[in-house]
Amino acid sequence: MYHFRNDYSVGCHPAVLEALSAVNSESVIGYGEDAYCKECADLIRSLCHAPQASVEFLIGGTQTNFTAIAAFLRPWESVISPISGHINGHEAGAVEATGHKILPIRTPANGKLSPAAILPILEECEDAHLTKPRLVYISDATETGSVYTKAELTELSFFCRRHGLLLFLDGARLGCALSCKANDLTLADIAQLTDAFYIGGTKNGAMMGEALVITDPALQGEFFRMKKQHGAVLAKGWLLGVQFQALLQDGLYFKIARNAVEVAQYLQGGLKNLGIPMMVDSPTNQIFPIVPNPLLSHLDELCTYEVWGKADEEHTVVRFVTSFATPLSSADGLLKAIKDLT
Amino acid sequence: MYHFRNDYSVGCHPAVLEALSAVNSESVIGYGEDAYCKECADLIRSLCHAPQASVEFLIGGTQTNFTAIAAFLRPWESVISPISGHINGHEAGAVEATGHKILPIRTPANGKLSPAAILPILEECEDAHLTKPRLVYISDATETGSVYTKAELTELSFFCRRHGLLLFLDGARLGCALSCKANDLTLADIAQLTDAFYIGGTKNGAMMGEALVITDPALQGEFFRMKKQHGAVLAKGWLLGVQFQALLQDGLYFKIARNAVEVAQYLQGGLKNLGIPMMVDSPTNQIFPIVPNPLLSHLDELCTYEVWGKADEEHTVVRFVTSFATPLSSADGLLKAIKDLT
Amino acid sequence: MYHFRNDYSVGCHPAVLEALSAVNSESVIGYGEDAYCKECADLIRSLCHAPQASVEFLIGGTQTNFTAIAAFLRPWESVISPISGHINGHEAGAVEATGHKILPIRTPANGKLSPAAILPILEECEDAHLTKPRLVYISDATETGSVYTKAELTELSFFCRRHGLLLFLDGARLGCALSCKANDLTLADIAQLTDAFYIGGTKNGAMMGEALVITDPALQGEFFRMKKQHGAVLAKGWLLGVQFQALLQDGLYFKIARNAVEVAQYLQGGLKNLGIPMMVDSPTNQIFPIVPNPLLSHLDELCTYEVWGKADEEHTVVRFVTSFATPLSSADGLLKAIKDLT
Amino acid sequence: MYHFRNDYSVGCHPAVLEALSAVNSESVIGYGEDAYCKECADLIRSLCHAPQASVEFLIGGTQTNFTAIAAFLRPWESVISPISGHINGHEAGAVEATGHKILPIRTPANGKLSPAAILPILEECEDAHLTKPRLVYISDATETGSVYTKAELTELSFFCRRHGLLLFLDGARLGCALSCKANDLTLADIAQLTDAFYIGGTKNGAMMGEALVITDPALQGEFFRMKKQHGAVLAKGWLLGVQFQALLQDGLYFKIARNAVEVAQYLQGGLKNLGIPMMVDSPTNQIFPIVPNPLLSHLDELCTYEVWGKADEEHTVVRFVTSFATPLSSADGLLKAIKDLT
Repeated sequence: MYHFRNDYSVGCHPAVLEALSAVNSESVIGYGEDAYCKECADLIRSLCHAPQASVEFLIGGTQTNFTAIAAFLRPWESVISPISGHINGHEAGAVEATGHKILPIRTPANGKLSPAAILPILEECEDAHLTKPRLVYISDATETGSVYTKAELTELSFFCRRHGLLLFLDGARLGCALSCKANDLTLADIAQLTDAFYIGGTKNGAMMGEALVITDPALQGEFFRMKKQHGAVLAKGWLLGVQFQALLQDGLYFKIARNAVEVAQYLQGGLKNLGIPMMVDSPTNQIFPIVPNPLLSHLDELCTYEVWGKADEEHTVVRFVTSFATPLSSADGLLKAIKDLT
Repeated sequence: MYHFRNDYSVGCHPAVLEALSAVNSESVIGYGEDAYCKECADLIRSLCHAPQASVEFLIGGTQTNFTAIAAFLRPWESVISPISGHINGHEAGAVEATGHKILPIRTPANGKLSPAAILPILEECEDAHLTKPRLVYISDATETGSVYTKAELTELSFFCRRHGLLLFLDGARLGCALSCKANDLTLADIAQLTDAFYIGGTKNGAMMGEALVITDPALQGEFFRMKKQHGAVLAKGWLLGVQFQALLQDGLYFKIARNAVEVAQYLQGGLKNLGIPMMVDSPTNQIFPIVPNPLLSHLDELCTYEVWGKADEEHTVVRFVTSFATPLSSADGLLKAIKDLT
Repeated sequence: MYHFRNDYSVGCHPAVLEALSAVNSESVIGYGEDAYCKECADLIRSLCHAPQASVEFLIGGTQTNFTAIAAFLRPWESVISPISGHINGHEAGAVEATGHKILPIRTPANGKLSPAAILPILEECEDAHLTKPRLVYISDATETGSVYTKAELTELSFFCRRHGLLLFLDGARLGCALSCKANDLTLADIAQLTDAFYIGGTKNGAMMGEALVITDPALQGEFFRMKKQHGAVLAKGWLLGVQFQALLQDGLYFKIARNAVEVAQYLQGGLKNLGIPMMVDSPTNQIFPIVPNPLLSHLDELCTYEVWGKADEEHTVVRFVTSFATPLSSADGLLKAIKDLT
Repeated sequence: MYHFRNDYSVGCHPAVLEALSAVNSESVIGYGEDAYCKECADLIRSLCHAPQASVEFLIGGTQTNFTAIAAFLRPWESVISPISGHINGHEAGAVEATGHKILPIRTPANGKLSPAAILPILEECEDAHLTKPRLVYISDATETGSVYTKAELTELSFFCRRHGLLLFLDGARLGCALSCKANDLTLADIAQLTDAFYIGGTKNGAMMGEALVITDPALQGEFFRMKKQHGAVLAKGWLLGVQFQALLQDGLYFKIARNAVEVAQYLQGGLKNLGIPMMVDSPTNQIFPIVPNPLLSHLDELCTYEVWGKADEEHTVVRFVTSFATPLSSADGLLKAIKDLT
């Protein structure tokens, strides 16, 4: 059985487990006020070339998204998001539960937002009987594995600043985004071009945890109280700092991501060679083959994966995801098995 | 340095770490839909003699409190809590952030609620210009270390049912409550007498995690969506099931708690023998000595602890807390050092 | 100057003012607990053939929509609405401010929802990582003046009941809907086919006020507290009962509506005769002519109206609305003036 | 039957009804964007010597309180209020429904807050596990009829500014407060010493309506969207401007209040002369006699009033309230009738 269900199907990277074990019996101050979190925050500021940034460790992606968004907005303000945005379609109304409307925008299959797609909703919302759009939510990589180029993110960032919009980047899969061939962005670019973003741990080697970087000082105040109010303060907060330090201090985070991307790209290339087209050409660790329906039952025996949706009456889009724990041999094995079938 | 700051100052019990390590490289389905969580939920139902209960794993205490309370209530309904209740004074307005008023009730220093203390607020709230009290929040052990007797909890439970009130028990320190000499309650009693309660992991040997037991079937529906909406679904959900299984399957949970209680009680007894009185006579793992102010600077050098409040101009209430990681020798060492000072 | 801006541009119908004046110096109990409100509620139950219904007077449409919706839903539940629904596009995020997501559905230009349009979102939301759709919001007449036939509303109602969905009908313009030629519904039909709906006062002769009819007994409980919590209880509550009684007791409500519809239909027919097409063929008191852009500046001098949107580079959709206060002579005058221009 | 139940038991002052009637058939732009509201806002700014203030008309007191408070606060911020504050005890959890905790403070029977009473909660809330107190809510007159002196309000205002707290004054009964003998404040003083306050219409001659004055420019932005979101925008918004203009332009507002105060004070003096003590010595239009229980059944036949609470086993506190519609003869009649009884 080959595992391609997702990138959060095994525990943590062995080095992370080792780091957690090493501090397990130490007495540490709680709630993230410990030295591990402080050092790790410094490390992240340094990696981002953002000495003014605040770094907040939270437990999961949905939690990070709604806690940050709700902290940044006033009650009448709303969020612009791609229709396919995780906050719009996979978080059970978490942003709305904090009182804020999401304004969903249609995008190409790559799930990327552009100024041209945002402008009409801004014009419509000049009417004060509507909410005031205040924050643009994007993710890198997107839900369909695509990444923003530096030119695209720069254009979007300038557009947002011109229109008084905050730019928030969901980095649940930022490791893979920054590690793929299509990428020309750095952590420092992202820190400069957004108002806040997060470095995802859960999907890239940690047991759990996301490192939120708030680069705009005007958005930083009293964030601890906000986290506490939303259950986002881990009592044993150092567990998050220790994990991110293990991941980030020697580049393990990007090594992990590179492996995931390489295996996924190898699999994508191989499937194409077998005549299986992709719903979207993804450069990262998620790929979306369009398979003939009869192949599905065979796939079920070969590997774990997710059904993404119907392509047409005879074809289905499936999703394969790789992680630090996916060896190249899994991709190879799957390709051979499919080749044998077809 | 002796450590008495709190019961969440070290990682997890070694057996829990071992269990996590054992499954670390396994591929498991996410979001708590795995076999570990299912088996552990069965185990908890069995320990509680509550086959009809649903068991939900969440990450921390504040999160469990507000997610459960908000799931159970309608918008106009409110929560009755002791003034000293954790939801009222230590959770940064988390319950109110979900839209519900807390009606704080004065209690004796032990922090326990009784029907007599609740009745007046019910009468006042018959006026429909006020919220409708619908849920009574208690904790066992309370914030000041006290426990409910079976007679007290039974009386409270019957009172609640007679008045259409839900009874919710915060069990962040349930292990110590059930393991102390003053206790005559069992898990099964609590399951029978409350509508929902939780078995705290964070403060009793887990890295993180609370096991919420919803005994009232009418309150169980769609709780997964509620958790997801509030960031309480861990992507790698099995991490919680694995930890609770390690704690509960062979009684480790209660062994841990007994140690914490014994050390705390030894320390409490020793301090009294040294002439240091207590703010409240606590039977569990938190004790509240009233110390002469000049002693504080010495304590700072001897141990970690928390200042609880001012007793009078010349005395301060401090809090010492023990955990699975507190050896009896720490209590002994501290007592000797204090004796030498006085 | 002819007035077609909207149906809430003048005070109240003279008979309503007279009724208010008649009770102005009487001492009446507050908060809607008075005899006027009670009698009027009885009258409405009788008109609706719904003895089991509760009748609640609120002040305005947005308030009625979000107060009712939030009262009916649990936190994880969401609202299905046409994209063009008033709650989705004109209420500044009021429903989301109570914590609930709106799931917007594309419709034809008439703004009407059908089971076929709703079904896909139900299937998508079987995934528990999404909200649970629980209430279908429609309006009659719709935002573009269309009305539901009895067959359509019956089909929708049965569909909702089959799928565990509540059906809520925004009746801000219910008077005109029920008074137009395309209509074959009665108040009693609507009471039977929906779970709750309201009879709009503001747009049909009242100073302010909407009469919410909750036909489903399971949704009625504690609604007064809900209204109070959301600022929807008028201290001098009888002002609402008195107005609705004046409107409903002798059929004035429908007489008012018939006038509005007749004048609008006369104007729509006349404009078509002048070669001006409509964006949608509306049977009620709002019409949507597509006018050549050069005509706009002339219109500005002739009458009040609203720009609805761009039709193409050379044409604009405008909206003309009539009310009890719009005489046929206004339509006639406007038609003549436009004829002279073209 | 003499009427002392409350100050919102009759419609509006005849002059207000006349003003409403005079504009009833005029076509006016909606949502408060009309000339009446603009002129009235100018008038209020002028009366308050506050050219920088924004003036917002809302419909009722609860609505004004929670809409303003929620507009001013960030999610983690809370409200300091006297325990007896209307927002704490009479608004069905409206402030909490917007997500904010109320921190209730004990006060003397007069219901007034002082810096000394506030300071301890500020110190307690320096702990970031609690909410951040950000707004102090007071009312003038208080729920028990008392008024702030200029010295008291000045001291409170300076204290708030020193501690970064907003000062919000609920002026539901501001007319009577400013019109009583104990008062030495002016509208201009209040505008200068608070960040926002409102001039109550409902309880002083209007059908409905409160005029919120936001003196702090930092709090004014996008308030229209906030009102809209909370159902606080009246479609026929000019109805509020017209009423306040009728009340304020020639001093009618204060004339009304003076009458209410005079009658209440006459009644209070008369009752004291009859040996009936007061729960609190109120200088305004609400008085709180402590009556022997056997008198209650007689009172029920003589007049309308409210039971305020139990004084002791044999006595009950009742509340008598006067308004513009209470003639001195009512007080006289009631006093004579009581005298005859005793």
